[in-house]
Amino acid sequence: MLPRKIPDAMIGFEHMKKLSRTSPSRIVLLIIDGVGGLPHPQTGKTELESARKPNLNQIAKESLCGLIDPVSPGITPGSAPGHLAIFGYDPVKYNIGRGVAEALGIDAKLKPDDIAARGNFCTLDSQGLVTHRRAGRISTEKNARLCRLLGDITVEGADIFVLPVKEHRFVVILRGEGLSPEVGDSDPQQIGLPPKKIEPLSPQAQKTAEIANEFLSEARTVLRSEAPANMVLLRGFSRRPDIPPMSEIYKLKPAAIAIYPMYRGLARLVGMRVLPAGDSITEELNSLNRYYADYDFFFIHFKSADTKGEDGDFRAKVQAIEEIDSALPGLLSLNPDVLIVTGDHSTPAALSMHSWHPVPFMLRSKWCRPDDVTEFSERACQAGAMGRFPATEIMPLAMANALKLDRFGA
Amino acid sequence: MLPRKIPDAMIGFEHMKKLSRTSPSRIVLLIIDGVGGLPHPQTGKTELESARKPNLNQIAKESLCGLIDPVSPGITPGSAPGHLAIFGYDPVKYNIGRGVAEALGIDAKLKPDDIAARGNFCTLDSQGLVTHRRAGRISTEKNARLCRLLGDITVEGADIFVLPVKEHRFVVILRGEGLSPEVGDSDPQQIGLPPKKIEPLSPQAQKTAEIANEFLSEARTVLRSEAPANMVLLRGFSRRPDIPPMSEIYKLKPAAIAIYPMYRGLARLVGMRVLPAGDSITEELNSLNRYYADYDFFFIHFKSADTKGEDGDFRAKVQAIEEIDSALPGLLSLNPDVLIVTGDHSTPAALSMHSWHPVPFMLRSKWCRPDDVTEFSERACQAGAMGRFPATEIMPLAMANALKLDRFGA
Repeated sequence: MLPRKIPDAMIGFEHMKKLSRTSPSRIVLLIIDGVGGLPHPQTGKTELESARKPNLNQIAKESLCGLIDPVSPGITPGSAPGHLAIFGYDPVKYNIGRGVAEALGIDAKLKPDDIAARGNFCTLDSQGLVTHRRAGRISTEKNARLCRLLGDITVEGADIFVLPVKEHRFVVILRGEGLSPEVGDSDPQQIGLPPKKIEPLSPQAQKTAEIANEFLSEARTVLRSEAPANMVLLRGFSRRPDIPPMSEIYKLKPAAIAIYPMYRGLARLVGMRVLPAGDSITEELNSLNRYYADYDFFFIHFKSADTKGEDGDFRAKVQAIEEIDSALPGLLSLNPDVLIVTGDHSTPAALSMHSWHPVPFMLRSKWCRPDDVTEFSERACQAGAMGRFPATEIMPLAMANALKLDRFGA
Repeated sequence: MLPRKIPDAMIGFEHMKKLSRTSPSRIVLLIIDGVGGLPHPQTGKTELESARKPNLNQIAKESLCGLIDPVSPGITPGSAPGHLAIFGYDPVKYNIGRGVAEALGIDAKLKPDDIAARGNFCTLDSQGLVTHRRAGRISTEKNARLCRLLGDITVEGADIFVLPVKEHRFVVILRGEGLSPEVGDSDPQQIGLPPKKIEPLSPQAQKTAEIANEFLSEARTVLRSEAPANMVLLRGFSRRPDIPPMSEIYKLKPAAIAIYPMYRGLARLVGMRVLPAGDSITEELNSLNRYYADYDFFFIHFKSADTKGEDGDFRAKVQAIEEIDSALPGLLSLNPDVLIVTGDHSTPAALSMHSWHPVPFMLRSKWCRPDDVTEFSERACQAGAMGRFPATEIMPLAMANALKLDRFGA
């Protein structure tokens, strides 16, 4: 009931490193992406309240429940901050730049000093002014061909990798000595203007800005006859945050099972081993069973609740929740010492986007103090014993319930 | 219920500036001053629980409810921190000095470098010792006459303005180059001592201390035959805090409707446009209707719940709550996209003063996730989905519900 500080401030990683210890107990963290919702105007019930979900409700009965804020009240999290907070990292401190996020999204392996930028193919008119910032959304195939052309550009001082994403989007990775992410964008963010020159934002970024500008100059030559994709715009130059791995903070051996590359990339960023995931929740849980003896922390990602929410399809989101519920016996049979079910943010079908609403949470273990919650839903979890709390508190709770934390102080 | 850091720490203004965007939606913030209370010994019901307030209760049914701590649990806020917190400013960081608060209270327009001090007329005996710190509470008329005398004092290095407040209280404003608020008080805070010499508290405050001491020396001459008001005491030298305007943080065009000067001054301090308020809640709401198209954020201040609470008049405070309830249809007819009703602090009639008790809060919008609260009261709001939370989280929530915030992170 009392407003508390987030644990990275209250019990920081330095303390957590000292308190944590290895033990045979296992923690399973199931993230149902975008699980929180809003009431349907006809029924007054949210997607979770509308779904038939006997397994999730049974877990709720045996769990400590609550509602999490991934970032803070009112703030709508992207996928990266939503997940990082649950993994225990202050999502404001460990902010992921756009270039890095895009690279994670295509499973590109970034080295610690690599600089990644998000690229768009765009259209310039004869005077060099941007007439379309997405080059009319060219096909992914054309994108791949143009990225191969750009990949042949060589600039002294860095290796340059150009990796296609989808439609007009790609990633540029600069690899070399003495680079810095502190450079501006070339994307003018509106049409009718020329692409901007990349400016260094600090003295040590001079070299990076020169390399990026030379790449852009070459790109213009290479693409000159490729209208509408006759130029590129770069933005969000960034480097992997210097993030301490979970093995170091919690002495865990963590593994991730996720179908989508973005989530595998995030897991890798915090030091998780990425396991095979197949392409369905059943295959994900088969993988969990197969590797269960080899790790002591498992992050399992279930995507489609978010996808259907973003589609604005209330009924399909309800079905996605029912799908994960039906698959749960394949997880429950392992009887993990600590089982956590939550989401990285809400994605109400009514809004068709990520939202700021807090997310239902439950933690089941032999040692949790269960509350009176009997259903996994927004309204029911709000009355749980955890109340509403910052997602960064989940990991200390998980570790405690796994009996993997020594006591603090004499 | 809400364990969280205040947003100015977690999502600071730097982030908020990037996330916020302008849109046509409108936010209306109604502050019922001192609305929170304590149970009446006979009935066990608070002022809010005793009032007939169908409109407030109807809003509660459609709202997300909770209890706010303006500063932090146990801390009784003055009016300035109570309001600043609701406007999104950390009230500890943006502390308002006593001199500035007094100047705001008479609607004095302070320039950014002006130094304001609170003044008291006092009585000195023949040995120059203070015998009465308030000069027997002289009349406001006499105060005004003596301030005119003091206003004729000229001191090299600064323009000096002396503005009467009420009874023995006045404000001195120093305006000039190279002044500093870092000087001590002349008020010895007890009788039987002489007024203190004003001491510079930092080297750059030397000039200000000299000017203040010269003013005090002249004041003693001017007032020598005005017993009991034969001298003045100064304290709380301060400067307007350097506070970023709401237009810059939230990209809002904010306006204030408040009858009392203190609240207009606070609103001006955070960059609100002060609109005509008349002298009743009905006239305030008429003004809201008249200007509704021209701004996208409205702060409406209703004072008398606090006044009656400070009078210790339980029944009159109940009536004040019923008065604002009756006036509400004039606000509800506008159907603002986001409507917030709360108070800047509690003023229980049982205590006859501001108190530390958390304050009922409700936020209604198309996109809030309503809870099961059906009444606007301390007890009912405590069970709301927001639980208990810091008042500084209100603005991010308001912005989110008005769909005026982009998502955070990739």
